[in-house]
Amino acid sequence: MSTSINLAVIPGDGIGQEVVAQGLKVLTAVLPQDVKLETKEYDLGAQRWHRTGETLPDAELESLKHHDAILLGAIGDPSVPSGVLERGLLLKLRFAFDHFINLRPSKLFPNTASPLAGRPEIDFVVVREGTEGPYTGNGGSLRTGTPAEVATEVSINTAYGVERVVRDAYERADSRPRKKLTLVHKNNVLVYAGHMWKNIFDKVGQEYPEVTTDYLHVDAATIFFVTQPERFDVIVTDNLFGDILTDLAAAVTGGIGLAASGNINPTGAFPSMFEPVHGSAPDIAGTGKADPTATILSVALLLRHLGFEDQAARIEDAVSADLAERDGTFRSTEQIGDALAARVAG
Amino acid sequence: MSTSINLAVIPGDGIGQEVVAQGLKVLTAVLPQDVKLETKEYDLGAQRWHRTGETLPDAELESLKHHDAILLGAIGDPSVPSGVLERGLLLKLRFAFDHFINLRPSKLFPNTASPLAGRPEIDFVVVREGTEGPYTGNGGSLRTGTPAEVATEVSINTAYGVERVVRDAYERADSRPRKKLTLVHKNNVLVYAGHMWKNIFDKVGQEYPEVTTDYLHVDAATIFFVTQPERFDVIVTDNLFGDILTDLAAAVTGGIGLAASGNINPTGAFPSMFEPVHGSAPDIAGTGKADPTATILSVALLLRHLGFEDQAARIEDAVSADLAERDGTFRSTEQIGDALAARVAG
Ligand SMILES: CC(C)[C@H](C(=O)O)[C@@H](O)C(=O)O
Ligand SMILES: CC(C)[C@H](C(=O)O)[C@@H](O)C(=O)O
Repeated sequence: MSTSINLAVIPGDGIGQEVVAQGLKVLTAVLPQDVKLETKEYDLGAQRWHRTGETLPDAELESLKHHDAILLGAIGDPSVPSGVLERGLLLKLRFAFDHFINLRPSKLFPNTASPLAGRPEIDFVVVREGTEGPYTGNGGSLRTGTPAEVATEVSINTAYGVERVVRDAYERADSRPRKKLTLVHKNNVLVYAGHMWKNIFDKVGQEYPEVTTDYLHVDAATIFFVTQPERFDVIVTDNLFGDILTDLAAAVTGGIGLAASGNINPTGAFPSMFEPVHGSAPDIAGTGKADPTATILSVALLLRHLGFEDQAARIEDAVSADLAERDGTFRSTEQIGDALAARVAG
Repeated sequence: MSTSINLAVIPGDGIGQEVVAQGLKVLTAVLPQDVKLETKEYDLGAQRWHRTGETLPDAELESLKHHDAILLGAIGDPSVPSGVLERGLLLKLRFAFDHFINLRPSKLFPNTASPLAGRPEIDFVVVREGTEGPYTGNGGSLRTGTPAEVATEVSINTAYGVERVVRDAYERADSRPRKKLTLVHKNNVLVYAGHMWKNIFDKVGQEYPEVTTDYLHVDAATIFFVTQPERFDVIVTDNLFGDILTDLAAAVTGGIGLAASGNINPTGAFPSMFEPVHGSAPDIAGTGKADPTATILSVALLLRHLGFEDQAARIEDAVSADLAERDGTFRSTEQIGDALAARVAG
């Protein structure tokens, strides 16, 4: 825990700006007086691209390196061809800063719209690999646009990359009361990558004798997410399966408005980046309807990453308490931010 | 509609044998007296592999070609390394017989364990591509088992393969009352394959002006499956996304015990193959707990494929009626089969 935080802020597109403003409000409210918060905003996203054609120039990538952490709102807009900002900005950051742990906790909060409300406690965390798999951009297309086109996507997996994320997941499982770790893959079809994942999972597991392990194919995992999510404690999985499963996890717990995430480089070599799981939701941008809670919970993950455990817990408790008292009345983005800022300041 | 059916039966592993027996019982009961049903059972699966090391010998593959259709129970057993039977038998059949339409209807039946029970009508069908994508077995591993291992999986997509499945999906959408088709992919990350899919989807769509179209990323699709499944009519997607989404679809509708599928080659060049979506469930094999309904509904798809529309509908109506009258008492595999056979014969 340091005495200053030098934070990069990328509000991005759509509702990004609005939710990030509330995230910063709560961050300011929860920090001890003697911790100095410096923020620098980066103008990146759809508007920048329309204006200059740039997604993430080298100078800004370099500048971003010198922050303690990054808070990101949301990236993506229908006016930009699909993939341009995702690959050129969001994934570029995850890859350049070697964010190999994409951490996505799921918890069933009180009073949420979950179809599973009233079920036993749901409290698991997905450790999604963040730098490999089908996300490497390794692929191509031949005879593009013709009836003879062939397009490929290559999932690249290395023992180096798999072992480090699997080890991180074991560490997390080992430190939780239930000490349970589930590997999700599809090793009955993706036999090369799948078997490598499974072998490394088994090998590293020998170092964690107290952790109970389990393996599920990704298709079967989706069933359990719906019928028996309480069975999960820590889940480790590849980049694409993690993408799919964490949206589903959000849907079966509190909804996408509550799902937080951290793109973490645990070595500290580069700043880690925290962002809500949801997208830029251009349809509700500017209406005050966006729920900033996912961003605020991402701020909690950011604080925990920087060593401010008490402050992180304070935010999480505030969200629980706030939801428990929710009575269904509409509250704007700002009202939710104000309510949570007031709670954590208290 | 022909006057005879020459059916290949592959009971396979685990509960496969039990559920297939009930499927055949209902098939026999529903067929008009003057339709001659011939069946030939193929001993393929885990036991055969243990005995002889064979998954699907050429002679049997050749022999299977000469049937009108194939009914398959389930493939896979924990005693066999993951992937051996899946790749060597199940996927080998799908690829050898060019089953490019993997048809998976989802319907919210009455009285089911769905967490969404009581919701508006859910009635959609997933048209999953069956012969390409990450399922081609194109991949490899280098320095296997060492800390320097690299494992790849290549998703192969051709305009030829995508266009034919997309066209089939438009045809289906066009013939349904709601005429709505949703493409699910991940074209913001898998830009090569994803854009090809989207371009072909848009191009073929020009020939179906009455069909309303929609595009969703696979992660977002999982959210809608949980929160708003009634929005879907026909969904077309790639092999892996289709695998994941159809298990999820089963979970949010009637459960995996009711999910039927057809691996269809609409050209008729090779026999189509019908199977429940569920696996071999070795944990309940032999206990009489397996629900044969998914297999029986797969028989309905088989009958429809062969032109027996009335008989197909009769089975589907019988399942609806049977579920509507279900009172929660345990019924064995055989009891459910008997009940449905009695209804369709009536
Ligand atoms: C926007 C997109 C590139 C991203 C992903 O696929 O990782 C998003 O879905 C997420 O989960 O953070
Ligand atoms: C058993 C497995 C190879 C298969 C698949 O992945 O297609 C199954 O999950 C299915 O959905 O039919």
